[in-house]
Amino acid sequence: MQIDITDAADPRLADFVGLRDAQLRRGEERFIAEGLKIIERAFAAGCRPRSLLLQPRWLADLEPLLERFPDVPVYVATEKLIEKVSGFHVHRGALGSFDRPAEAGWDQLLEARRLIVCEEVVDHANTGAIIRVAAGLGWDGVLVSAGGADPLYRRAIKSSMGASLELPWRRLDGDADLARLKEAGFRLVASTLSPRAVPLKDYEAPEKLALLLGTEGSGLSDAWLAAADDHVTIPMTDLVDSLNVATAASIFAYALR
Amino acid sequence: MQIDITDAADPRLADFVGLRDAQLRRGEERFIAEGLKIIERAFAAGCRPRSLLLQPRWLADLEPLLERFPDVPVYVATEKLIEKVSGFHVHRGALGSFDRPAEAGWDQLLEARRLIVCEEVVDHANTGAIIRVAAGLGWDGVLVSAGGADPLYRRAIKSSMGASLELPWRRLDGDADLARLKEAGFRLVASTLSPRAVPLKDYEAPEKLALLLGTEGSGLSDAWLAAADDHVTIPMTDLVDSLNVATAASIFAYALR
Repeated sequence: MQIDITDAADPRLADFVGLRDAQLRRGEERFIAEGLKIIERAFAAGCRPRSLLLQPRWLADLEPLLERFPDVPVYVATEKLIEKVSGFHVHRGALGSFDRPAEAGWDQLLEARRLIVCEEVVDHANTGAIIRVAAGLGWDGVLVSAGGADPLYRRAIKSSMGASLELPWRRLDGDADLARLKEAGFRLVASTLSPRAVPLKDYEAPEKLALLLGTEGSGLSDAWLAAADDHVTIPMTDLVDSLNVATAASIFAYALR
Repeated sequence: MQIDITDAADPRLADFVGLRDAQLRRGEERFIAEGLKIIERAFAAGCRPRSLLLQPRWLADLEPLLERFPDVPVYVATEKLIEKVSGFHVHRGALGSFDRPAEAGWDQLLEARRLIVCEEVVDHANTGAIIRVAAGLGWDGVLVSAGGADPLYRRAIKSSMGASLELPWRRLDGDADLARLKEAGFRLVASTLSPRAVPLKDYEAPEKLALLLGTEGSGLSDAWLAAADDHVTIPMTDLVDSLNVATAASIFAYALR
């Protein structure tokens, strides 16, 4: 259902207002897909569209996908208007609002063999990159702690290249969920800079493994380090203080896949 | 030499004007360090300061470093003024302008055992991330092609955590430089998505290795793929089309270190 929009204050555009502010948008029952490619991934992942806001150039590409959703409003506007509504420059002007899918259930996650568990990874690009590499290298899912970035925030989806719409993930209720993983047979493997930890190349991966990654800057908390069964490190030169958390995730995910 | 600044149009601030525009600033004989940590790294790397622009809060931290440079002007201003001059929000308000150091010489690079060679990696964050992981994992240097991002652009330095000030790097004159690497005994190893390539885990690293990484989106050009001695791939699931180039660099750099 195509609707031309000429007024940035049109109340029908509420889903697309103020998209730069991740805090403002937190806890909402929908997510925003940015760009044709991510919108297509959202449809492919079976997400239910609420409305789209795009430049006319994208209508033809999206027509086959929208056939199944004749009642979904497709707001058509200029690039300038889209920028005014959303509050940022929307690269090539296409936004989709979709119902937020349910997080993965514990049943599914506890049956997995390889999980990544992020403690307060707050950067959306890092969270998306971790999910992208986990999906690409065949890991089964990702867990994020209470204060960590939302894998379905616009920029996280984008940096995951849409993988956060397909790879099972859920938010932890609290640190007690680490015990739940242990009870299900997972060995908790902490990524740490400590020189006393086992070098990654010498570490033999167990059958069921949950990789614990710490927050940007300071790494895993003492509580999570204490909860871990094994401490493993990527030996480094003294030219750098640390590796980026998504970089460490990539190396661990490859070496322990 | 501390100088209080109250006018954003002060001509003495020329080094700090319009820092958001990487193109505008290209080819200049200086680089900008952003943030106290990177400024400190620039001093530690022996770079020569031209001037600093910062909030008064940083003066005490920088005093010991500036003792050796009594003639270097230290412009002190409010956060708002710094933002107005530079054109972006300078996190915690400290900028340093330094003489651009010379690129690494071929003599040094050709003696190396492990180099990363980037073909048109245009994103500054990716370029910085590649340099950071190369430095951290003990690779000897990085080469960037003619159109690739500048490792000394502000954001590249930042995402390298300052490593691009310490790890030897240089820009290629042209594709003929690949032949120069071969003549010096390097085996050129192309990172590719091709399913016909050797899986990384089965690849035995030669004594001298230059890892070729392609541009974001389309990867290595046909010319570079043809120039490579070996084609190597990170096997992936079908949940993602590709890995980010910095992610691939991290995995290769770890596996072939």
